[in-house]
Amino acid sequence: MPSIFTRIILREIPCHEIYRDSHVIAFLDIAPLSFGHALVVPVEECEFLHELSDKSASALGLALPRVARAVLAATGATSYNVLQNNGATAHQAVPHVHFHIIPKYGGGSESGRGSGEGLGIIWKSGQIAPADASKLSAKIRECIGA
Amino acid sequence: MPSIFTRIILREIPCHEIYRDSHVIAFLDIAPLSFGHALVVPVEECEFLHELSDKSASALGLALPRVARAVLAATGATSYNVLQNNGATAHQAVPHVHFHIIPKYGGGSESGRGSGEGLGIIWKSGQIAPADASKLSAKIRECIGA
Repeated sequence: MPSIFTRIILREIPCHEIYRDSHVIAFLDIAPLSFGHALVVPVEECEFLHELSDKSASALGLALPRVARAVLAATGATSYNVLQNNGATAHQAVPHVHFHIIPKYGGGSESGRGSGEGLGIIWKSGQIAPADASKLSAKIRECIGA
Repeated sequence: MPSIFTRIILREIPCHEIYRDSHVIAFLDIAPLSFGHALVVPVEECEFLHELSDKSASALGLALPRVARAVLAATGATSYNVLQNNGATAHQAVPHVHFHIIPKYGGGSESGRGSGEGLGIIWKSGQIAPADASKLSAKIRECIGA
């Protein structure tokens, strides 16, 4: 079964498209967190970011600032979050990689949109002991080399 | 004044480095939201994602899945969030583009880490009327073309 995003890419399901190249499509989220909330999606159907081919990954990277610039220009937003979720416990709802670009309207001065509209973030930072960080970073470096 | 990340890139400030190529560096966050929380940073010093050059943007895109794969392999996590914040109201703390890779441990089955550890997300989705979405998507498409 193709994902709902693949069906959008194939134009079997309509969307409010804002960008398309041979590797990437972008369109408005139908249940936006804020005005201008857009999705940037690889044509390659992978469930998770870490499964993406190099070609798709670099094309996605290239598309993100382009789409972000246009969303800001069209909405008047100046702040935004880019979010990409992997796994149901990490809030992933569609099993096809997608980056959210979510304008953040706050502080009352921007664009006349509702204050605080956008992504809500809870940031509970912790600590890691230097010795543990040394061990972990060495292990991750080994995994990248492998 | 160079950003703290530029000073890390120049090795004036130490970090627990996990990846480096000519355009991108990655290292452990010193105040992690979860075990394995990593930052992926362009060498190019831009405050916001939409300011990045094409070269940095595609190199970042390429690096993200590579670093994510290694973080998962090293930590045993299977879920994670990728987050990139632009603007203080959107939770940006350092004025130099950075992507967070934040493993999400939850549901009790993974890795023995604390349940619910990771990024907290509040998702208040709204609606956009089809006519408004048509207008907005047309405007964004124009801005991308410009």
